[in-house]
Order: sequence, then structure tokens, then C-alpha cells
Amino acid sequence: MDDRNFETIQTPDFDRRRRRLFGETVYGEGKGAGALKTCIETMLEREGEVLVTRLDEEKFNDLGKLRERLDYDATSRTAVVKKKAPSLGTVAVVTAGTSDIPVAEECARTLEYFHVNFKRIYDIGVAGIHRLFSKLDDLREADVIVVCAGMDGALASVVAGLVENPVIGVPTSIGYGAAFQGVAPLLGMLNSCAEGVTVVNIDNGYGAAYAAAQIVATLYGKSK
Amino acid sequence: MDDRNFETIQTPDFDRRRRRLFGETVYGEGKGAGALKTCIETMLEREGEVLVTRLDEEKFNDLGKLRERLDYDATSRTAVVKKKAPSLGTVAVVTAGTSDIPVAEECARTLEYFHVNFKRIYDIGVAGIHRLFSKLDDLREADVIVVCAGMDGALASVVAGLVENPVIGVPTSIGYGAAFQGVAPLLGMLNSCAEGVTVVNIDNGYGAAYAAAQIVATLYGKSK
Amino acid sequence: MDDRNFETIQTPDFDRRRRRLFGETVYGEGKGAGALKTCIETMLEREGEVLVTRLDEEKFNDLGKLRERLDYDATSRTAVVKKKAPSLGTVAVVTAGTSDIPVAEECARTLEYFHVNFKRIYDIGVAGIHRLFSKLDDLREADVIVVCAGMDGALASVVAGLVENPVIGVPTSIGYGAAFQGVAPLLGMLNSCAEGVTVVNIDNGYGAAYAAAQIVATLYGKSK
Amino acid sequence: MDDRNFETIQTPDFDRRRRRLFGETVYGEGKGAGALKTCIETMLEREGEVLVTRLDEEKFNDLGKLRERLDYDATSRTAVVKKKAPSLGTVAVVTAGTSDIPVAEECARTLEYFHVNFKRIYDIGVAGIHRLFSKLDDLREADVIVVCAGMDGALASVVAGLVENPVIGVPTSIGYGAAFQGVAPLLGMLNSCAEGVTVVNIDNGYGAAYAAAQIVATLYGKSK
Amino acid sequence: MDDRNFETIQTPDFDRRRRRLFGETVYGEGKGAGALKTCIETMLEREGEVLVTRLDEEKFNDLGKLRERLDYDATSRTAVVKKKAPSLGTVAVVTAGTSDIPVAEECARTLEYFHVNFKRIYDIGVAGIHRLFSKLDDLREADVIVVCAGMDGALASVVAGLVENPVIGVPTSIGYGAAFQGVAPLLGMLNSCAEGVTVVNIDNGYGAAYAAAQIVATLYGKSK
Amino acid sequence: MDDRNFETIQTPDFDRRRRRLFGETVYGEGKGAGALKTCIETMLEREGEVLVTRLDEEKFNDLGKLRERLDYDATSRTAVVKKKAPSLGTVAVVTAGTSDIPVAEECARTLEYFHVNFKRIYDIGVAGIHRLFSKLDDLREADVIVVCAGMDGALASVVAGLVENPVIGVPTSIGYGAAFQGVAPLLGMLNSCAEGVTVVNIDNGYGAAYAAAQIVATLYGKSK
Amino acid sequence: MDDRNFETIQTPDFDRRRRRLFGETVYGEGKGAGALKTCIETMLEREGEVLVTRLDEEKFNDLGKLRERLDYDATSRTAVVKKKAPSLGTVAVVTAGTSDIPVAEECARTLEYFHVNFKRIYDIGVAGIHRLFSKLDDLREADVIVVCAGMDGALASVVAGLVENPVIGVPTSIGYGAAFQGVAPLLGMLNSCAEGVTVVNIDNGYGAAYAAAQIVATLYGKSK
Amino acid sequence: MDDRNFETIQTPDFDRRRRRLFGETVYGEGKGAGALKTCIETMLEREGEVLVTRLDEEKFNDLGKLRERLDYDATSRTAVVKKKAPSLGTVAVVTAGTSDIPVAEECARTLEYFHVNFKRIYDIGVAGIHRLFSKLDDLREADVIVVCAGMDGALASVVAGLVENPVIGVPTSIGYGAAFQGVAPLLGMLNSCAEGVTVVNIDNGYGAAYAAAQIVATLYGKSK
Repeated sequence: MDDRNFETIQTPDFDRRRRRLFGETVYGEGKGAGALKTCIETMLEREGEVLVTRLDEEKFNDLGKLRERLDYDATSRTAVVKKKAPSLGTVAVVTAGTSDIPVAEECARTLEYFHVNFKRIYDIGVAGIHRLFSKLDDLREADVIVVCAGMDGALASVVAGLVENPVIGVPTSIGYGAAFQGVAPLLGMLNSCAEGVTVVNIDNGYGAAYAAAQIVATLYGKSK
Repeated sequence: MDDRNFETIQTPDFDRRRRRLFGETVYGEGKGAGALKTCIETMLEREGEVLVTRLDEEKFNDLGKLRERLDYDATSRTAVVKKKAPSLGTVAVVTAGTSDIPVAEECARTLEYFHVNFKRIYDIGVAGIHRLFSKLDDLREADVIVVCAGMDGALASVVAGLVENPVIGVPTSIGYGAAFQGVAPLLGMLNSCAEGVTVVNIDNGYGAAYAAAQIVATLYGKSK
Repeated sequence: MDDRNFETIQTPDFDRRRRRLFGETVYGEGKGAGALKTCIETMLEREGEVLVTRLDEEKFNDLGKLRERLDYDATSRTAVVKKKAPSLGTVAVVTAGTSDIPVAEECARTLEYFHVNFKRIYDIGVAGIHRLFSKLDDLREADVIVVCAGMDGALASVVAGLVENPVIGVPTSIGYGAAFQGVAPLLGMLNSCAEGVTVVNIDNGYGAAYAAAQIVATLYGKSK
Repeated sequence: MDDRNFETIQTPDFDRRRRRLFGETVYGEGKGAGALKTCIETMLEREGEVLVTRLDEEKFNDLGKLRERLDYDATSRTAVVKKKAPSLGTVAVVTAGTSDIPVAEECARTLEYFHVNFKRIYDIGVAGIHRLFSKLDDLREADVIVVCAGMDGALASVVAGLVENPVIGVPTSIGYGAAFQGVAPLLGMLNSCAEGVTVVNIDNGYGAAYAAAQIVATLYGKSK
Repeated sequence: MDDRNFETIQTPDFDRRRRRLFGETVYGEGKGAGALKTCIETMLEREGEVLVTRLDEEKFNDLGKLRERLDYDATSRTAVVKKKAPSLGTVAVVTAGTSDIPVAEECARTLEYFHVNFKRIYDIGVAGIHRLFSKLDDLREADVIVVCAGMDGALASVVAGLVENPVIGVPTSIGYGAAFQGVAPLLGMLNSCAEGVTVVNIDNGYGAAYAAAQIVATLYGKSK
Repeated sequence: MDDRNFETIQTPDFDRRRRRLFGETVYGEGKGAGALKTCIETMLEREGEVLVTRLDEEKFNDLGKLRERLDYDATSRTAVVKKKAPSLGTVAVVTAGTSDIPVAEECARTLEYFHVNFKRIYDIGVAGIHRLFSKLDDLREADVIVVCAGMDGALASVVAGLVENPVIGVPTSIGYGAAFQGVAPLLGMLNSCAEGVTVVNIDNGYGAAYAAAQIVATLYGKSK
Repeated sequence: MDDRNFETIQTPDFDRRRRRLFGETVYGEGKGAGALKTCIETMLEREGEVLVTRLDEEKFNDLGKLRERLDYDATSRTAVVKKKAPSLGTVAVVTAGTSDIPVAEECARTLEYFHVNFKRIYDIGVAGIHRLFSKLDDLREADVIVVCAGMDGALASVVAGLVENPVIGVPTSIGYGAAFQGVAPLLGMLNSCAEGVTVVNIDNGYGAAYAAAQIVATLYGKSK
Repeated sequence: MDDRNFETIQTPDFDRRRRRLFGETVYGEGKGAGALKTCIETMLEREGEVLVTRLDEEKFNDLGKLRERLDYDATSRTAVVKKKAPSLGTVAVVTAGTSDIPVAEECARTLEYFHVNFKRIYDIGVAGIHRLFSKLDDLREADVIVVCAGMDGALASVVAGLVENPVIGVPTSIGYGAAFQGVAPLLGMLNSCAEGVTVVNIDNGYGAAYAAAQIVATLYGKSK
């Protein structure tokens, strides 16, 4: 065997935009610098835009010259090249605490890349529930609400019990031992006593943004 | 203490319709006949309609005369009294196998109660994937797709990878031992390789209907 | 060996009252009718009072004549013979839903047996959070608050975030599949984002009453 | 977007002291140096005091000049600025082994910050149970007992079986493989055969202190 | 195929006594009446003795005439035909509560069948630890101690910390929800802070007896 | 809605034989008598043969006249109508104990239905390992070996370490508490120290037969 | 004791080739450089060939001169010295994504070492299912198919539902939080709704290759 | 508070030798260099001997001059100062593979410290079962057998099925993903199909040695 760089073997799904409205994106975790460069460059060539998620600062720094073309954000660990287009709708991106912000920012950056408007409503967890009530109008005006919360994940239930809008819960891996890296808020949200909460994987801000963007696209005529 | 029938103590949330668009419903599991009757009668009096879920045939039969007023369905274990109103939108309610149908029917009956149109697309699991492809147009025309699947729950991923619409996964408790009463499809759906799938609790057809109805209501002007 | 009725072999802890303020009680689960009768009669003879927990109606009916001496309650599955004594303090016994009431009643009956006052505040879960706010004064006036909740267990967090008093959470085995018979609310309460919540075992209304009574006894001079 | 330092966005709960007797504190884990500084300085400005928990030595050293104002302790990983005030009551802070001490010290430092007296009773686990009996008077004189134990967590049961006082168990993440980072003592304490033990999250010395302080405050007239 | 009674196909291990000192026994669970009869009769014919474990009363009653030859005990769910032989050594069979007695009795009956002496020390759990201290001499005089305990399983640790003898722990499936059918005491015993405790499967009184008998046989010259 | 017998809605995969060599079969669990009858009759009409698995005796008796056409076996809970055809290859179906036989028989009956020869080698578990060695030639002569074992599942490892043939492990739900309904042998087989063991779901004799039949079909020219 | 290098004590199974067709191999994880060298040199001396798996680049670099004799590949973490021999059959090695490639390459390199032909079919996961259909002929022509997939593991089900060949699933430890390091795809594959999928341990490309090679050897006359 | 070196607060159990035959030992994990030195020096002063377990090489190197007095072994991570005394009995310390040796060596070193003879029988796992049979006489001659095994842990069952002696299983944290750091062999050994196996915690070579030494002490008159 001559060349063993098998990680660069890829079958990008360039048909995805046609089928699913939003195009292929790049998941940074577990990819080497070479594989990442190939991925990003192929996307830029074919699609003229790219979203890279789970891209640690260290890995970003390994991308060399390519860095200059990318809008990188360390909190959300995302890099973006985005086409110009009008943004639609409004998604409220909510967190219970400040430690949930990196997950919320992955969500926010993905929404931005998908040309969906969003507003940040951070650190309004139920330990001080007056903070939530002071934001209730903002929450009710959104088309969709994404709630990022660790520990007991109770914020998703409480928010959902107060609004008409679809609520998507993102359990985060924040909490002491018996949170089990996000299992506690995952179970909490799946068992939300306020009906209608749907849930994505632990720390999956990207997936929540995707689902929220699909609802917004449905709402505004899929005109993207 | 004279009367210890504490199970009939209740604080129904009659404000829910104002806050959340859809009114309070009745969860049948764990309630005795007396508590159920009180619940249902209060709802009928105050709201003129009622949806009871998780109502086993045996329990339904304990309701006496009240049975005559209720439209009961044994498959979905639901009883309904519904006001007349035009129905909106379309939700595709999908199952992988025939054993998932009771969960799907709980979803369908709830949608019906919420005045949301739906179509049944049953028994199209990925073991015979041509069945799914033959229904692709039906799936794509829906506003929202609810996928009920046990075992590996793979149908949610495959459907989501082929459509633009929001997909809500309902893991069911169907499967051999290592399905662990729905844990396998729950994890499968939370880890769907097609992005955008959101998930509700195991066997929770009601919750999926609620979330789907919220999206439909958003889409059609919350005019309900 | 002649007589193999080993289940009647017992070493009741008649020293417990001296050491622990409250005396030995009888746990009904897993005991046969013979063993139960011996237990109850010994307690009545030695202590003049008895509390039996986890006593199903069927088992109670097997107790024959002894039934006449016992104050039995089917909801809480408890039987009581209680000495007269003034009651002290106030414990608020709270539930999220109506299905949590049997657990709350086990707590209430145990408090009553320990001569501690209590008030029931039932069915005020966060799905309709206004119900909780309307009871806030009652909650704040109590010496201790016991919160019984299944599903996401979020009520414990929300209550604790609003009050000064000690809050004891009792997760209940109520909920759809991924509640895993009380695991979801157990983890939720252990990870409460409002500090200070302490937790007892799933469905353990008795244990919560014991802990609450200890605090009340501390507060009122252990004068019992 | 110009400034992406979203982690410094915060909504501190300055109303907490009014509502909950004890004010907002700072959780150090998962916060960067910038966020921490902002947090601590805001607290000092507004409240004149601060408690930071889960603050590793390395992170403390990143705080620059601010370090001079803080009383830092590496064992408990806490930093404190505390107002003068008389201390009330007595909490016995107990450990089974020496490895449980960091958790116990987080508890002790929090009690100190809340102006609650405490005494350390360390390394008296049931493997050498005479050590526990020699401290029984100390235990019985306390208003509340906090037991920190890993492995089998059996100390909580044994202590609770010998005293009248409220006992709060803190399972620690100490032990060989099948302790599963604190799951074994967590389950042990939740299943304590001596009634009345309440439990907080794994390694959550802070939470135990909070609950104990609430009881003490109740006891001494909430005069803090 | 003519005869499908495949459950009666068996390959009893009649060589076991030669290899392992104690002969083959019969596990009653999951065997039909026919299979059981064949088993028991073959054993009686070949070995002149038999021990049947996990034999519910109902199943015993299905054995017809064979019942007359068997010494049946409902508490331990065992049936025995035993050869005469002198008994050796002493095993202390201990329980924490009365609900653990059926497991302890399975252990006791198995020891009896293996011609090992035993004494019952029941209901001495750590909730009332003075009961244990009053039996300490009995415990210390035994060759081996078997401790059967559910809930927190703490008794195994406490006993082992006080004696020189080998201690075998048998976790039982007794306890409220978070005991998870014996998982809590299993983990507690595996993590015993007193060294030297070895553990068998949940409710496995038979296995503990086997291990204890092997130690006794080793001690008394394997003369059985 | 007039007719709510939704469970009879089915989309049988009649294309399966073409695609997968073996045709559609009927899974009996969770289907009512009506649904079962429709299923079986459709299969008989279209394919002239049928295999029903997980068919309890009670359910079989509900099938009325249809029973006369079916070859039913209670141990394996299967009903069969089979076309005549020569059988190919040899699969050794092995069990560790007698309690594993129902699972093994589900496997055997499925192989028979697929026209694959098999031999039963039952009750040769490693507790008496000489029984296994006496069958080694039989094992080595088979084309594939299916090992059904509960408890520790060790038989799969030991067999695989002695032979050249493919070994498929079927963990069974047999065992005391910590077997957790088949989890222990499932993990044991997945971690087999003899390489090459592949594993199917707990108690899934049918799935093991399917996989074995695929290998045999590959071997004998897929001539079925 | 003089020399404590106990890790070099080994009992290699040189009889394995005779018994099992394929010889002993070397598992690199958890072995020090000294132990590894001894192992590899013994194998080369006795067998003239060697396969080392789980050999990190760092560890390979510790092997000094021995490196020159080994064909090392960093992606699969394997080192090989291979005898010349004709290769037989064809195994399709498939991955769902690019992150699964290291596991697939461990499989491929093992097949190569066992003189079995293979073809790589990478990155054809069900999120873009057209990629799978375009490879269907390649899949159908193989003797065995090995599917490596993380996240939901759904690819194994979908592939198996379309082909006649034996399908072996390898769950990989790829995915967000609730994939639990491979548990989600493991359960997914064990519960595959397409029958006949057998499964090996998480990330166990080597084990899948072993099982596939056994089937190929069976097919081509075990002529190796 | 002046001095916060709380880790040096200790209550060593110097009464242990009297009560339990073997004295207090030092567990190295989680202790800082200062605490370790204090511990070791106190033991040497009071008892004239010491056993330190779980002492990584790095930590050992932090002990400064004290190192010269200690007999350190990196494989078992133990340091010993041992009094002269005759050794008694024989324990066979067995491993399935070479990766289990560190755990076995912790056992061996502990036995040596307790003046119990032992023989090493390493790398005889059931994948090549002839290796085990060639050591059967050695195994049968031992007073106790300790089996250390990871992966499926099957060696414990197989050994126990062949001998009369007490067998203690030590599951090790060796294995691919689904071994879950020792859970698979732990469950395997708890479910051993050969009766009489008792089990200690994962990787707990020290605990197994303690239990084995207790049996040997019993056997040889507790004359130590």
C-alpha cells in the first residue's frame, strides 16, 4: 500500500442542500489537520461557504493560511465562511447558567450560518426565577425557543409551561458528579412535565439550531 | 380526619389554553376510577371537551355512565370529547413496524383532538427500505413528520436524511432484551446521524403530537 | 428443626426512641401475615403505639381482628395506633401532580404519627407555575418543605429557589419510560440548581417525614 | 459581531439573599479567568463579600492582583472574602477517611462563610468503628451532622442510627472501580437503613453546607 | 419430530463431587414439573441425595408423590434429601433485617445439606448497632461469616471491621426504589471500607454457602 | 373514523426473499389475535409457508381453526408451515444449561424452517467442562456454532478458543440478580477473550439462526 | 525477589494456529516497551510473522531497531510482518463516516495479515443514503460485509436489509454525549430491525476481521 | 485558621491488628506527598512495618529520603517495609492475560507482606485453555486461588469448575469498550456458573490478598 492517509477519503454529501434545505457541514472532532483542510477547501470550492463545528483553538491554529479565510470563534469552537443573504425569523437561544454558554453559542453561530435571526437570553436559570419572568415577552415573541441547561435541566420545563412556541431542549454536560456528564438534564428534559418539549443530544447546540432552522424555514416559506 | 380520598384533590391548570394554546388534558395512568371521573367531568364542565390518555380498557369500563359521552379507542388507550373546529396543516405519523402502532395512534388521536390533520404511514421500517421510498412524496408534503420506532430506531435517521421538514422521533419500548424497554431507540434517535431530529420520551405519542401541533399552530397563524 | 417460621424471628430495636427520639416502626413490604401480626402486637404491647408502612389493602385484610385496633389508610398504605400528644411545628407536604399523592400521604401520615403538624399543598407542578406562586406564603411559613415529584422533579428546584426553609426532595416513580421508575427525578433533585435541596430515596415519603421531624424536633426543643 | 466574550454575560441573582437568606456565590468550574474576575469583582462591589468554590490553584493564580484580596485554600479549592458577623449553631463535619477531606473542607469553608460554627471530626470510618464511638458526644451535641464518605458510604447509616440530629450525607468520588466515581456511596446513603438521612450530590460539600446552614438559621431565628 | 420435550435433555455433572468435593445440585427456577421430576429422581438414584433450590411452593406442589420423599421449606424455597454424616465447623449466617431471612435460609439449608454446622444471627442491622455488638462473640467464634443485607449493605463492612474471620457478603434485593433490586448493597459490599469482604451475586444464599463450605472443608481436612 | 383496528394495517416485505434469500417472517409478541391471523393467512397465501416466533401457547390457542394448519412447539414458542426442500450444511446449536433450551430451540426451529441442518448439543456449560470436551468433534464438524448461554456466558469464549468455525453467541436472560436479564452474558460474549465471537441480542435465537443460515447459504452456493 | 519485570512473563499460545486456523497476535495496549519487544521478537522467531494491534505511534517509536522490521500504520495503530501467501475471498469494509476509518483500517489490516482480500467502502452513512445505494453492487459481491458505525449505528441495519451476505457490525466510539462512547451504536446494532446482523465489541475492528476471516476460510476450503 | 494542611489530620486504626489479625495499611491514591510521609513514618514508628498500595512511581519519587527505607515495586505500585516472620500456606495468584499482571502483583506483594506464601500462574486465559490444564496440579495444591481477569472474566468460572479450593475473583479493568472498565468481568464473575466463586472490587488485588490471607490464617491456626 502506498498512501495510507485514509482519513482524507471522504464522500461529502453535496446533494444535501437540495434534499434537506441546508448543505453539508464539517464536524471538526476526531479529524486531523490534513483531513480538515481538505474538507474545508472542498466545501469552499463547491459551495462557497462552510461551517466547521467542534474546532478547538489548537486545531484551528494548525490550519495555517486557511485561517485567514475563516471567521473563528473560540467560545463556540466554530469557524465560518458565510454567503450574504437576508436572515429570517427569530430563535431565542436561552441558557440556565453561564457555563452553558459555549453550547448556546454553537447554536447561535449555526443559526447565523443558516441565515436565521436569533437573540441571546443567557443565565436565567430557575434558581432565580424572576430573571426568567423578566424575559417572558422576549421568549414569547420568538418563533422557536432553544433552552440549553445542565444540572437538573429544569429551565426547559418551566419555560415550556409558560409559552405557546416550540421549545427544543439541549442538555449540557454541566454539573456535579450525579449529573453524569449531562445524563441528569437529558432525562429531566425528556420527562418535562410541561408537554411539547423535544430534546437533542447532550451539548448538541448544532443539532438544536438545525431543528430550529427547519421550523423557521417551514414558517417563512422555505425561501432560503 | 374523615375523608381521605386525597387523590381527588386536584389543581387543574385551566389557564393553560391561554398560556400554551392547547388546554389541560387528563393522564389516566395511576388514577383511580373516582379521581378519573372527577377529572373528566370537571374538564367537560369547564372546557366542554377532554382528552384522556393512557386509559386502559379495564379502567374505561369502570367509568360507568360517563362512557357514553366519550369516544374511546383501545389501541391508543385514549378517550375524547372534542369540539367542532376546522383542522389545520398536516402531520405525517410514521411507524417502523406494526408493534409501534399503539404509540402512533396516541399521537394521531391527540393531533385530531388539537384539530391538526394527519396521515398514517405505518410499517415502513428500514428492514425493507423500498417501503419508505414509496412514501417519500407523502412524507415531503407534510408540515411535520413524527417517526415512532423501537428496536434500533434507525427509521428516524433515514427519514430525516431525505426530507426538509422537522422530524420528531418517538422511541418505542418494542424490541428484544437489549432494547431495554426503549433505551436503544432513544439513544439511536438522540444520536441520529441526520441532523435536526428532536426526540421525546419513550412511547410518548402524546408529547410528540403536542410538539408537532405547536409547530403547525406557529405555521398557520396560531389561529386555533 | 421443628419450626421453620424464621420470618417471625426478630430483634426489634426498642432502644431506638432513647437514641433517636422516634421509636421503631414496622415496614410492611415482604412480611407475611404472621410476621406482621407478631410485629404489630409486640409494638403495641411494648410501646403502646405503632406505625406500619407499605401495607397493601390486601395484606391489611389478612390481619383479622387486629384490624379493628388500627387506623388504616389505603392511599398512603399505612396503619397507625397513635398516643395522644400535642403536635409541634409545621411541615409543608407538596406534590407536583396528583399521581405523587400516595407518596405524599405516606409522608403526612408519618408526620402525624410523630406529632408534627403538616399542611397538604398538592398538584402545583411547574407545568402551571402560577399554582405554585399562589401558595408561596404557605410554603414560606412552614418550618420544613417536603416536595414529592416524579417526571423531571423540577418542582424541588423551583420551590427551593424561592424560599429560606430547608427543602427535602422525594423523587417519585411517576413518568413515561425514560423516567426509569424515579431515576429521572432523583437525578434532577440531586442536581437541583437551587442549592440546599437534600434528597431521599425514590417514593420514600416515610424517610422524608423522618428527616423533617428531626429538624422540627431540633427547632422545638426536642421536647417530644 | 465585535465582541464575542459571551462568557462574561451574566445575570447574577442579587435578590437571592432577600429570598433565600444566603446570597449568590461563584462556581469556579468551567469559567475562564476573565469571567471569574468579573464575577468576583461584581460580588465584592455589590455585596462586599464573596465565596468562590471549585477554584483550582492554577485558576486562582490566574486572578492576578485580585488574589491579594482573597483568602484562598487549596484543599477545599475555595476563595473567600467574608464580612464580620457572629457565628451561630454547630455543624459536625465528619469524614470516613482522609481522602474525603477536600469535600469536607468545601463544606467547612462554606459554613464559615455563612457564619455557622462547625467542628471537624475526620477519619472515623466504620472499618475501625471504635473511632466513631469515641466521638459520639461531639456528634450528639451538634445541631446538624454532615457525613462525607466514599466507597460504601456506610458511615452515614451508622452515625444516623446513633443520634437524634438531622444527618446529611455527602457521597464522595473516592474508591476502587466499582465505586463508579461516587455512585456506590450515593446509592448506599439513599438506601441508608437508619431513617432520616438526606443526601446531596456526589462531592457536593457546598450543597451540604447550604442545607445545614438553612437548618441552623431556622433554629436560631433566621437572625443572620 | 415426535417428541419435543427438550427441556428434559440434560447432562448432569455426576463427576462434580470428585472434582469439587460437593456434588451436583438442582436449580428449580425456569424448569417445568416434568424436567424437575426427572432431575430429582436421577439425582436420588445416582447420588442418594439431592438439594433443590429456588423451588416455589406452587412448583413443589406439582411434584406429586415425589413430595413425600422431600424435606421442603417454603421460606428458603429448598427441598432436600440428605445422607447422614457428621457436620463440621461453624458458619455464622447473619442478616441485617427480617426481610433478608429467605436468602439467609437458602444459605443455611445449603450448609446443612453440605454437613456444615451453622448458627443464625438475624436482624442485627446497623440501624440499631447495639444488636450487633451483643452478638460479637458468636461472630468471632465462627469459622466463616455470611452477611445477608439489602438497602445499603453496610452490615458487611461493619462486621468485617470487627473480626478476624473471612466474611462473605450476600447483597439482597430488599429496599426502596434506588436500591435497584440489590444493586445498592452489591456496590456497597464490593466497596466495603473494611478489607477482605468478598461478595456473591444478589440473593445468592446458595453460592455463599458453597464458598463458606469450601473454606470449612479446607479447614477440617476436606474429610467430607 | 369507523374502523380503528389499526394493528391490522401492515406492509409485509414480500420482496425480502429476492433481496435477502430468506423471506419475511412473523414476530408474534405484541400482536393481537386478529392481527396475527391476518398476518399468517397473508403469508400462507402469498408464500405458501410461514414462521411465527414468540408465540405463547395462550396466543396460539386464540388462533382458532388456523391452528390445524400450523406445526406449533411450546418450548420454542414457534409455529411453522414449511415447504419441502433439501436441507444444507450443519449448525451446532449449543447451550450451557437446560434453562437456555427455549432460546436454542427458537434457533433450531428457525434453521429447520430455512432448510439448514442442525444438531443439538445441550447442557455442556463450563461448570463441568469435561462435557464440552466430549463433544469437541461434533463442534468442529459443524459449519457454524451457535452458543446460547446465560449467567457469565463463558461457554462462548471457551468453545471459540477450541475451534476454527465461526461462533455466534446468544446471551440468554438466565441468572441471579446481577445477570440483569442477560446483560452479564451479553457483555461477557462481547468481551470474549477468544477472538472471532460475534453476538446477537439477548434471547434472540431467531437472529442467530438467521446469521448462521446466511453463512451456510454462502457456503453451499446460495442455492436455496 | 531480584527481578520484578513480571510483565514480560508470558505464555504465548503457539498452538492457536493449529486449533483456530489463525495464529496468536499481539495486543499493544497496556504493555510496556520491554514487554512488547519480547512479544514481537518471540513471534517473529517462532512464527516468522506478527500482527500488533492498538500500537500508538509513541509506543512504536519506543521499539528502537525493531521498527525497521515492522510495517507500521498510524491510522489503524497496527504493525505487521507478513508471510507471502495468496489472498482469498472478499470482505467489504464499510464506514458510516470518516471518523470511523481508524476502526475500519484495523479491520482491513487484520484481513490483509490473514490473507483475505478486502475493499474499502467509506463514508456512506444514512444521512446521505444515496451514497450507499451507489455502492450496492460492491456490497452484494462481497463474501462478508463489516459495517463500522458510531452515533446511531443505523448503517448496519440499512445495509443488512438490502443484501444476502453475512453482515458484522462494529459499533464505534464516535458521537456526542449520549452516544456514551459507543453504547448507542452497540445497542442499535444489537437491535437491528434487519435480521442476521451480528455484533462485536466497540471499536473492535480486529475482532470483526477475525470473524469475517473465519467465514471466508470456511467458504474457500480452510486452505490457508 | 493558620494551618490548613488538613490531609495530615488522621486517625490511624492502630487497634486493627488486635481486632483483625492484620494491621492498618496505607492507601496511596489521592494523598499528597506530605500526607504520605506522615502516614508512612507514623506506621514505621508504631508498627515497625508498612505496606503502601496504589503508589505511582512519580509519587514514590516525591518521598525523598524515605525512599531508601522502602522496598518499592513499580508494577504493583506498592512500597513495603516488612518484619521477618515465617510464611504460611500457599495462595495461587492467577491471571488470564499479561495485562492483568499489575493487579496480580498487588495481590502477590500484599500476601508477601502478610507472610503468606504464593505462586504466580500468569497468562493462562481460556482463549488457549490447554495452558490452564497444564497448571491444574499447581492450582489444586494451593489453599486458596485468586483469579485476576479482565474482558469476559471467564477464567474464574473455568478454574472454579475444576477444583475444590476457595476461588476469589478479581475483575480487572482490561478490555475493549464494552468491558466498561471492568464491569463486564465483574458481572461475569458474580454470575459464575461454577458455584463458590466470591468476588472483590475491580482491580482490587489488595482486597483479594486480604481475604485469601484470612482463610490461610484460619487454616494455619491464626498463629501470625
